[in-house]
Amino acid sequence: MKRIVTLGELMLRLMPSGYTRFVQADGYGATFGGAEANVAVALSSLGMDAAFVTRLPEHEIGQAAVNALRRYGVDTSGIVRGGQRIGVYYAEKGASQRPGKVIYDREASAFATAPREAFDWDRLLEGADWFHFSGITPALGDLPLAICRDALEAARRRGVTVSCDLNFRSKLWSPARALEVMESLLPYVDYCKDALRFGGEIPPFEEDLALAGEMISRFGLRGVAMTRRVSRTANDHTWSGALCTGGGVCFSREYEMHIVDRIGGGDAFMAGWIYALLDGASPEEAIGFAAAAGCLDHSLEGDFLLVSADEVRALAAGDGSGRVVR
Amino acid sequence: MKRIVTLGELMLRLMPSGYTRFVQADGYGATFGGAEANVAVALSSLGMDAAFVTRLPEHEIGQAAVNALRRYGVDTSGIVRGGQRIGVYYAEKGASQRPGKVIYDREASAFATAPREAFDWDRLLEGADWFHFSGITPALGDLPLAICRDALEAARRRGVTVSCDLNFRSKLWSPARALEVMESLLPYVDYCKDALRFGGEIPPFEEDLALAGEMISRFGLRGVAMTRRVSRTANDHTWSGALCTGGGVCFSREYEMHIVDRIGGGDAFMAGWIYALLDGASPEEAIGFAAAAGCLDHSLEGDFLLVSADEVRALAAGDGSGRVVR
Amino acid sequence: MKRIVTLGELMLRLMPSGYTRFVQADGYGATFGGAEANVAVALSSLGMDAAFVTRLPEHEIGQAAVNALRRYGVDTSGIVRGGQRIGVYYAEKGASQRPGKVIYDREASAFATAPREAFDWDRLLEGADWFHFSGITPALGDLPLAICRDALEAARRRGVTVSCDLNFRSKLWSPARALEVMESLLPYVDYCKDALRFGGEIPPFEEDLALAGEMISRFGLRGVAMTRRVSRTANDHTWSGALCTGGGVCFSREYEMHIVDRIGGGDAFMAGWIYALLDGASPEEAIGFAAAAGCLDHSLEGDFLLVSADEVRALAAGDGSGRVVR
Amino acid sequence: MKRIVTLGELMLRLMPSGYTRFVQADGYGATFGGAEANVAVALSSLGMDAAFVTRLPEHEIGQAAVNALRRYGVDTSGIVRGGQRIGVYYAEKGASQRPGKVIYDREASAFATAPREAFDWDRLLEGADWFHFSGITPALGDLPLAICRDALEAARRRGVTVSCDLNFRSKLWSPARALEVMESLLPYVDYCKDALRFGGEIPPFEEDLALAGEMISRFGLRGVAMTRRVSRTANDHTWSGALCTGGGVCFSREYEMHIVDRIGGGDAFMAGWIYALLDGASPEEAIGFAAAAGCLDHSLEGDFLLVSADEVRALAAGDGSGRVVR
Amino acid sequence: MKRIVTLGELMLRLMPSGYTRFVQADGYGATFGGAEANVAVALSSLGMDAAFVTRLPEHEIGQAAVNALRRYGVDTSGIVRGGQRIGVYYAEKGASQRPGKVIYDREASAFATAPREAFDWDRLLEGADWFHFSGITPALGDLPLAICRDALEAARRRGVTVSCDLNFRSKLWSPARALEVMESLLPYVDYCKDALRFGGEIPPFEEDLALAGEMISRFGLRGVAMTRRVSRTANDHTWSGALCTGGGVCFSREYEMHIVDRIGGGDAFMAGWIYALLDGASPEEAIGFAAAAGCLDHSLEGDFLLVSADEVRALAAGDGSGRVVR
Amino acid sequence: MKRIVTLGELMLRLMPSGYTRFVQADGYGATFGGAEANVAVALSSLGMDAAFVTRLPEHEIGQAAVNALRRYGVDTSGIVRGGQRIGVYYAEKGASQRPGKVIYDREASAFATAPREAFDWDRLLEGADWFHFSGITPALGDLPLAICRDALEAARRRGVTVSCDLNFRSKLWSPARALEVMESLLPYVDYCKDALRFGGEIPPFEEDLALAGEMISRFGLRGVAMTRRVSRTANDHTWSGALCTGGGVCFSREYEMHIVDRIGGGDAFMAGWIYALLDGASPEEAIGFAAAAGCLDHSLEGDFLLVSADEVRALAAGDGSGRVVR
Repeated sequence: MKRIVTLGELMLRLMPSGYTRFVQADGYGATFGGAEANVAVALSSLGMDAAFVTRLPEHEIGQAAVNALRRYGVDTSGIVRGGQRIGVYYAEKGASQRPGKVIYDREASAFATAPREAFDWDRLLEGADWFHFSGITPALGDLPLAICRDALEAARRRGVTVSCDLNFRSKLWSPARALEVMESLLPYVDYCKDALRFGGEIPPFEEDLALAGEMISRFGLRGVAMTRRVSRTANDHTWSGALCTGGGVCFSREYEMHIVDRIGGGDAFMAGWIYALLDGASPEEAIGFAAAAGCLDHSLEGDFLLVSADEVRALAAGDGSGRVVR
Repeated sequence: MKRIVTLGELMLRLMPSGYTRFVQADGYGATFGGAEANVAVALSSLGMDAAFVTRLPEHEIGQAAVNALRRYGVDTSGIVRGGQRIGVYYAEKGASQRPGKVIYDREASAFATAPREAFDWDRLLEGADWFHFSGITPALGDLPLAICRDALEAARRRGVTVSCDLNFRSKLWSPARALEVMESLLPYVDYCKDALRFGGEIPPFEEDLALAGEMISRFGLRGVAMTRRVSRTANDHTWSGALCTGGGVCFSREYEMHIVDRIGGGDAFMAGWIYALLDGASPEEAIGFAAAAGCLDHSLEGDFLLVSADEVRALAAGDGSGRVVR
Repeated sequence: MKRIVTLGELMLRLMPSGYTRFVQADGYGATFGGAEANVAVALSSLGMDAAFVTRLPEHEIGQAAVNALRRYGVDTSGIVRGGQRIGVYYAEKGASQRPGKVIYDREASAFATAPREAFDWDRLLEGADWFHFSGITPALGDLPLAICRDALEAARRRGVTVSCDLNFRSKLWSPARALEVMESLLPYVDYCKDALRFGGEIPPFEEDLALAGEMISRFGLRGVAMTRRVSRTANDHTWSGALCTGGGVCFSREYEMHIVDRIGGGDAFMAGWIYALLDGASPEEAIGFAAAAGCLDHSLEGDFLLVSADEVRALAAGDGSGRVVR
Repeated sequence: MKRIVTLGELMLRLMPSGYTRFVQADGYGATFGGAEANVAVALSSLGMDAAFVTRLPEHEIGQAAVNALRRYGVDTSGIVRGGQRIGVYYAEKGASQRPGKVIYDREASAFATAPREAFDWDRLLEGADWFHFSGITPALGDLPLAICRDALEAARRRGVTVSCDLNFRSKLWSPARALEVMESLLPYVDYCKDALRFGGEIPPFEEDLALAGEMISRFGLRGVAMTRRVSRTANDHTWSGALCTGGGVCFSREYEMHIVDRIGGGDAFMAGWIYALLDGASPEEAIGFAAAAGCLDHSLEGDFLLVSADEVRALAAGDGSGRVVR
Repeated sequence: MKRIVTLGELMLRLMPSGYTRFVQADGYGATFGGAEANVAVALSSLGMDAAFVTRLPEHEIGQAAVNALRRYGVDTSGIVRGGQRIGVYYAEKGASQRPGKVIYDREASAFATAPREAFDWDRLLEGADWFHFSGITPALGDLPLAICRDALEAARRRGVTVSCDLNFRSKLWSPARALEVMESLLPYVDYCKDALRFGGEIPPFEEDLALAGEMISRFGLRGVAMTRRVSRTANDHTWSGALCTGGGVCFSREYEMHIVDRIGGGDAFMAGWIYALLDGASPEEAIGFAAAAGCLDHSLEGDFLLVSADEVRALAAGDGSGRVVR
Repeated sequence: MKRIVTLGELMLRLMPSGYTRFVQADGYGATFGGAEANVAVALSSLGMDAAFVTRLPEHEIGQAAVNALRRYGVDTSGIVRGGQRIGVYYAEKGASQRPGKVIYDREASAFATAPREAFDWDRLLEGADWFHFSGITPALGDLPLAICRDALEAARRRGVTVSCDLNFRSKLWSPARALEVMESLLPYVDYCKDALRFGGEIPPFEEDLALAGEMISRFGLRGVAMTRRVSRTANDHTWSGALCTGGGVCFSREYEMHIVDRIGGGDAFMAGWIYALLDGASPEEAIGFAAAAGCLDHSLEGDFLLVSADEVRALAAGDGSGRVVR
């Protein structure tokens, strides 16, 4: 079993039930999520040894966050406890022509205020085959950025493979700052999700593929993957993936999805890609597995991809009929 | 902020959860709704100063009805308290080929038995720019009809613009009686929703448009709007609007909707139309705003349209992809 | 009112709410279901006098199972009480490309261990017009098979019409054993659902129709009906029925369904067919009614078809628009 | 098994969950209840053959009411279908020093408007050993009173034992009218619950016992039973029963109860008394069984007493420790 | 109707259902509460014209907070919109020997960061008879303290009566700082709840009464009220109130309460006291009304006292039996 | 951190919500529990390194059981996967005079049919300080008994301290067989809960204390602990503990408890005792800690004790007032 370590922020997600709007709600479902934690849970569900590193308050809400990861087998022994609050995000599900909505309340979270020295990366990466982070982590502030750099230095020292999901969030930083920081981090990265492009109009997909080719040359990346989503309404999306490697571009099947919960699809894709790479898949197999993993995440409530590798393989192999398994 | 006063009955809506049938239910969600109250809530959500006039019992269920309106900012100071009961309607959601069902239990409600003298329309319409009622109100009996007439007289006296949603309900009165009464009320009306046609086979849409033109001439209406709904199943409808004015007919976009809750769509359309008119919109803009408001209501649980004017504008302007707003 | 007696196992169905997976669930909806009990409930809802025969433990969970049938009007006076446990099945709803899942825990149930002598078939079939069973009953073991044979002998003795739904379950017996047993039982049967084919690849539908024709000749059947389901995803299926009689083949309309709950559709189809036959329908009417009944079941939560004959007729007659009935 | 027929109104009970007040509720639990229906359900649960007679609308809410009784084994074949509405009562649970609240909305119910000729009492009482009604039934209006008289005449004709629970409801009639009517009905009654005293201050319990003795002489009653409840708060009551017969007075144990749901306790007491009488109990046993049955009802949600005779006997015999039965 | 204005912070309360602990919860009930908002809601429910002043974010969670107050009739027109977040508190209900728990996450809330100039107190206090605040408001930081001082100055200028609930929160400030600030504010206050004593051991109740007498002399207060609570377990408390005026001390009845929700009891007491004073009650009546209001709040879920003045009067007059009101 | 290994069966607990009876339920809360698993979860919550050994099916319900333990930090790496089913128990909460009820459906569970060779006890006890089992494990059949013996032999070999909770279950074995087997196992045990007495009348507590003294001499035990529970009703119990050691008997405080969930109290007591012993407590401290831990479990839903050691210490030290901790 391969060991993957991911670093980032874990938030409490508060969500009205069904299609209830925030102003109608008299309660919230409480789950936990965050880009890198989602990757860890997905990899654990797929059968890998996954660990997640963050900082969470000592109180019971922080403990509940830890428990949410333990429940699905993630190693939480590297989580530092301290700070005052866990970041929160309120999520309202969209329907038909009405878009979903996310309201963040993550400032001054335990992770965003974490002291750099609390993380001993040589210990945290002991036995690790892979390290993963996303662009959200450095966007959270100088402290998380410094922690991220420490982790990347340690990963390089120890020969640990590194992946990054660029994951731009315009509420957290400007396109210019994002570009500057991520360009400084990409030299540490082996596998990258998303084109190095922040904000602005969405260009034709082909431009992003071309950009991915440039990224490979410029940063010595071993692969750049990306997803392609077309939303007809909040309920129906088409979804597929593309992968650029030194050897060219390959594509997954395209899925016409009925959306149960849209959040976390990209993280599931990322986890599927990592799993496939660690499992020795070819590029075609890898992008197929990644896209199928991402597709399945849209059929699940919550951020987390809770499926087995066999379930992903069955879909990637072509069975998307959803017939009951008895 | 413009002030709109609406008059009608507010009922308790009892609805099994999800797609549960009445005979399976062991509980009901309890919301409140009624054509004119729905218009008031929608206008308040869109940012107008909306007031609702009705009669409700003094007991706690009546109070809960008042509170449901206050919660969304509707001025309830004109609601008369008295009578024995609040009207009830039981609603079962349809799915796929199975139609939804509504069972009414509204006889002898506090509003249907309201004494005419309880409503001082000169006071109730003080400061009002607009008065709205629907064909359901006069259908409830002689007392509501008399109250309605009093309101219309006062509106004329005070130069208040008047709108009416014909809203025929075959369980409440006969087509002949409906025609007779509504013809007597239309001279007070400036803007009318629906063609003046009660019961019988549904004619081609073009016939209704022609009829709308006749209504404009005959009653001196400033506009007649109507919606066009095609149900493929209980879950998928297409939906659009058309507006006839002296200057001709114009149409909204057509929406392919996934239905969350079908009840109240017409009222949301009506409210959108009123909002657009008070906001100074052109006929094209008005019908576009009205149809988008109605469309969004189908994505919401309950009768009430709980969206901002910006959300309606975004949809009317073309974004129906339902992508998450972060 | 015609009287139908059905024999089989009734299980407790435990189902996470909505699209929650088993590993996410912290509770289950509890309903009851089983192929032949479903037929009895459907027939009772449609307006027939239906009785169900099984064995259930004396404890309260067994009593709750009895009550679930009584609630919908099924005569439960023929249910024998005894044994240790009620069979359980855990059901997880599929969504989009993710298949539904069923986990059975039915071994050593009260019915599977029922003593043959506990059932006095001459008494149980008193006044009966029809007897129905499915291939699941003999698959449950030697005791249920013997009970089934006793029932069939008594039905023949008493001139009761017999129907059988072949309903192959590969977890319960092998294709070879199923074929051997069902071939020995078909001589007692008048109306059969499904082609006599167990396991293996699904052949073209035409082959099954041809096989149905052979079954009619070989076993003297009065009709063989079958359903045709194409799953695009777990949420959208197309569904129709076909019926072979001595006079040839006829087909129902095809329905494009949004799935609420997929389990029990075949049983609803079977019940619809029995209802139509007892109601004196022509083959075309019968397959139309059966397919519409099955279609409606997919719009309902739980195994049970809880619709009136009028609701089925309305759909069979062509109204599948799902418009609200007020 | 003895057969008991009861007559009265069955209402839909709408209740906010837990200790939620009406003005806080966004849904109601939906159960059904009514004094005489409660007696029928309790007797069926205790193991008797109980039938309930009323009138309910044909729509699905009426059907759900029928199903609620069938579920617990009550014979509903004597229920007449027709009328427009089912009576409703809204119930709010009290807690600590805050009293519970009930709001009735039962006017013009299907039963209150039932035509006298719809009930063929000779058929309805066929095979009956016992007929039970309460003072609520004649209080509902002239039609129910006439139906009640018809039933009593038929019971006398057929030698059926009759019991009556006086059950005064000041919202339905005046003390004077109640006295007049009930005095005219008591000559038909064998067993009566409550002292013949309507409205006014509650006298010392001893006065009621004396009054019971007079009732026995005056109306030839075979027994008068009554309950004694002391409420410390909405959560704690003490509860016991007393029985006057020609042979004197006897008392049950006194219970200190934690209240789960207070409604229906008197009906459960009544049912327990009937059960004990039909079971051949002595007066001491009968009042003990009745009080224990009533006590247990307070530990159950809903109007209905859903316990076995063995459970009542165990409590009457002295085990009120509530220890888990494994 | 008298008009009361209160100032403070309104928070989102997140609470696991029933007795579920934080680490077991997979969702939270969402209500809103805050000492001064609770007073406003209680006064509105009791029948006064109550307004609440605070600052809340413009997003939908802020809007939901506004709506929670509007629903119960509080005038929210003085609420300033702006800032990033609403304060949150997580509350876990205690049971038996296990204490309840509250985790605050209120730092940097919209109110704590509110600019002083956003509040125009002459406008906000227009028409006001009474101004109320608690010691929590100045404890939230320098900005809220300054806003509070501005309000007090304006109240003095306008001759508005002022009340203060000292409400010490050790997590927000030190005893020394609390004393310093509150001593500077008490000269503006007419009626004060709690003895001027922060932190340390709880002294005998008599000492607090003596201290109240001193406060009256020192600050020219017209009354000091306090509550006396004895917790036997998390489920049973005894509760009463005492009031010191220039004329001496008087006491309320003592209540033995079953706790439904303990939070907000003191605020309900405060509101009851204000109501009684504005209603012209004597000191004996006032403390009786205040204690009864506080008592009833413990029987309600959520912070808010949702009872009528008649309900409080009935309890204060002695009916604490909790018998059902039909 | 000390390491404790426990062995036993983990079951799915299905429980209607609140005080709903089985025959009323339309769903069950799903938690997991079992005597020894409960001890492991409690010890993990208290801060120890606890591992649980059992056998569970590979399917998702088995996985959910594993996850329930992981969530609370229990090491599940020693759990063997295989077998067909997880044992189930249905639990109905008692109230007032109505007793709770448990229906077991645990026959042929994955653990009861586990092959002896699947458990490598030298590996499983590596690093362990303590081994715990209960009398339920050997009662489950010959295979579990053999596995238990293997574990005890390995514990002796490795010098691991052993505790046993006798926990007699009359549904699983006879008193005679229980005595025979447990006498054969007690020589391996260091600390034992309960007197060696199976079935029959409950003797005076003093006799059990005397018996405990004999057990210490006869089997060389280092301590025998027992609990004393008096049930007034299903809602109120008194609870305390007693501990016999070579040095005599000592007692805990007595608690008057309001019961939230009665199941698992004894296991929490056992875990508290183990914790205290491993923490170096004196006998007085140990029995105080154990009784407080057991007391707190009664205030929690579900089998599991989810409290910190500090929370237990606070109660043991005397604070049972349940006042809110802010």
